[in-house]
Amino acid sequence: MSKPTPISGFPEWLPPQRMIEQYVVDRIRSTFELYGFAPLETRAVEPLDQLLRKGETSKEVYVLRRLQAAADEPDDALGLHFDLTVPFARFVLENAGKLTFPFRRYQIQKVWRGERPQEGRYREFLQADIDIVDRDTLPPHYEAEIPLIIGDALGSLPIPPIRIQVNNRKIFEGYYRGLGLADPEAALRAVDKLDKIGPDKVAALLAETAGASDAQAKACLRLAEISAPDASFADAVRALGVEDPLLDEGLAELVRVMEAAAAHTPGLCVADLKIARGLDYYTGTVYETQLRGYERFGSICSGGRYDNLASSGADRFPGVGISIGVSRLLGLLFGAGALTTSRSVPTSVLVALPSEELRADCDRAATALRRRGIATEVSPTAAKYGKQIRFAERRGIPYVWFPGVDGAADTVKDIRSGEQVEAAPDAWTPPAQDLHPQVSGAG
Amino acid sequence: MSKPTPISGFPEWLPPQRMIEQYVVDRIRSTFELYGFAPLETRAVEPLDQLLRKGETSKEVYVLRRLQAAADEPDDALGLHFDLTVPFARFVLENAGKLTFPFRRYQIQKVWRGERPQEGRYREFLQADIDIVDRDTLPPHYEAEIPLIIGDALGSLPIPPIRIQVNNRKIFEGYYRGLGLADPEAALRAVDKLDKIGPDKVAALLAETAGASDAQAKACLRLAEISAPDASFADAVRALGVEDPLLDEGLAELVRVMEAAAAHTPGLCVADLKIARGLDYYTGTVYETQLRGYERFGSICSGGRYDNLASSGADRFPGVGISIGVSRLLGLLFGAGALTTSRSVPTSVLVALPSEELRADCDRAATALRRRGIATEVSPTAAKYGKQIRFAERRGIPYVWFPGVDGAADTVKDIRSGEQVEAAPDAWTPPAQDLHPQVSGAG
Repeated sequence: MSKPTPISGFPEWLPPQRMIEQYVVDRIRSTFELYGFAPLETRAVEPLDQLLRKGETSKEVYVLRRLQAAADEPDDALGLHFDLTVPFARFVLENAGKLTFPFRRYQIQKVWRGERPQEGRYREFLQADIDIVDRDTLPPHYEAEIPLIIGDALGSLPIPPIRIQVNNRKIFEGYYRGLGLADPEAALRAVDKLDKIGPDKVAALLAETAGASDAQAKACLRLAEISAPDASFADAVRALGVEDPLLDEGLAELVRVMEAAAAHTPGLCVADLKIARGLDYYTGTVYETQLRGYERFGSICSGGRYDNLASSGADRFPGVGISIGVSRLLGLLFGAGALTTSRSVPTSVLVALPSEELRADCDRAATALRRRGIATEVSPTAAKYGKQIRFAERRGIPYVWFPGVDGAADTVKDIRSGEQVEAAPDAWTPPAQDLHPQVSGAG
Repeated sequence: MSKPTPISGFPEWLPPQRMIEQYVVDRIRSTFELYGFAPLETRAVEPLDQLLRKGETSKEVYVLRRLQAAADEPDDALGLHFDLTVPFARFVLENAGKLTFPFRRYQIQKVWRGERPQEGRYREFLQADIDIVDRDTLPPHYEAEIPLIIGDALGSLPIPPIRIQVNNRKIFEGYYRGLGLADPEAALRAVDKLDKIGPDKVAALLAETAGASDAQAKACLRLAEISAPDASFADAVRALGVEDPLLDEGLAELVRVMEAAAAHTPGLCVADLKIARGLDYYTGTVYETQLRGYERFGSICSGGRYDNLASSGADRFPGVGISIGVSRLLGLLFGAGALTTSRSVPTSVLVALPSEELRADCDRAATALRRRGIATEVSPTAAKYGKQIRFAERRGIPYVWFPGVDGAADTVKDIRSGEQVEAAPDAWTPPAQDLHPQVSGAG
């Protein structure tokens, strides 16, 4: 084999980074379970026609074919899923009779998109999703619960604090309707480009695609300018003088989200009325999330409420969900050198090998340590002790165990401090902070 | 959307089964880490030419293409990996300069094969692999360590006990050479079919493909008949009267594996001299694993030593590894009804909702419980308490928390026993066995 090279857009972490990723995923998962979310994994593939229901995503899909497919094989094309929401909606419809509603599930899996790779944008990446779906109707209190869960999950990690930007699609739609715009969807798509193209071009786009007058375009931009760390955003919207029942509903729902967040974690949420989320299946609250100090990274956790994603005939399952972009978050923090681990292996103790003949004795000591939950390796060879200690040092293994020879007691050495004490493998335990690798933020 | 249907060969578990799968994967991972294996994930794709290096697997590969690939896009075809060994060997070659050797890694990921689906055989399935590779040479004691790790990993689960069948390719090759067979590889491929086609057809195949005489074919079959729960297999082989230095080396290595296993877990391993493993990259010890009482399932955990899988120019990384077929194991045990979980959600406590106005109080109680690691949900609606209790019952949630109203103390009820006690959300803790769902074997 010639020396292989990386494939652009398909990141692979070295073991220390993978240890950090596992730590992060374990913490996220643990928080999701504390909130009662049940685990789910869906298959990596969906029928291509399901993936293409939304035309705008079609360019991102990887299609599969069996290398040796027969010419007469039926055309049941499969593609790799590009998110976890579409497969989840399909799973709910397929298994509705076997699930209990409201159904809370989390799902932590790879997804694939054939996009052009760039910093923090991959073709294969890991997402951690939660969704709550109910049959027929979904009470709005679930929209207020989502930010608390994300606040706890990401707040438990050694990463910069987050700020969740929230908005509500009903505010947009009600406000645009109240303004007299005939095509609120077109107006939303124009305003969604605000950060990318600026207010002047958005105003032109509003005129062109949504038929907005100058005054209407200005009113749309004024709404998008509103941002507040508390429920005061509602007064600012009302001061614009637009009236519509759907607008009132959206304002009340967003006030509830802001109040629940303030009671749980002050400063966690900000009402930001330009947040739209491009995907057209959202119908209520929408979320984006920034890492404070890393706002240039864009959103690392996004989602919203959807009423029409999972429906079939008379069955309708409205839901609300959010997705943490784990690979994106870690790729950006690894790039900034902002996450480290105390060692590159799980191993806490290396059992030194006095001679190859004594390997069985060393294995017994290692077994006794492992039985009590202490990750242990036995030295690969009976090299000089100095060389065996360097083996541990290079990996960050904190302790070397020296089996007593000729009736002497075993000893264990902290190779960082040099301290060495007598110890028995069925009794000695390292300090808690040395039992597992420690993950910490930079500085 | 019309009601979706399953895709053959792509299994999906319902949440209770996924909870069992996670429990199983957590225990396996924990054992791997106790032995010092570092985690790794590789991308799902490899260049197609790498996947096709072994011609016999080519029919199983899924090839990817971007749906919107431009006509002039360079032809850099990618396929989904069909195992975790080939990607690992590639990763080692690609990153050798950044790794420390011997390198112990575990890898728990989905793999894909375009095979015809059948019971226990999937097109998408989860594998849990460990491998140890070293630079240039790999001491044989690692071949003896692998069964101990698997014994601990699978022995920690509520599944039937396992039996690991071990053999060594050097015994085959040395014995066939000692017999005077010119093409030991062809003889091995014939004997590998013993379980499928029986001794008469194997004898015919040995004559046809390996040029064996009647006496040579009989001698090959006699070797394959040898099986022993201890190192006595070596005497049985020597009694056949074939002499070869490679045979002696293989016997010594296999004796070592059997002795190490007997010292660690009596009865764990059996030397079974018909085990060959079809994949042609194995060069030393080979492993297969049966669940006792479920031998008809075939092997649920297989692997072996390979000397030539990861090599490039002068760089050579011999290794030994084994792979637990997690989906296969669980699919068969689920099918037999042999694994259950005590509830279908992680939730330990449901906080009942006296009225929608009191939701903020209920959220505070839930937060206090979660802060101490107790998975808690708040009731979706302020229905009658009987209905809220049934919500918990249907999911197997053991406790319902009743917030005190008008100054009364909170109470918590074990809805299995009916016992109800006063409790404070920042102090009460459920018994340890109710904190997390319990996974257990049948009967």
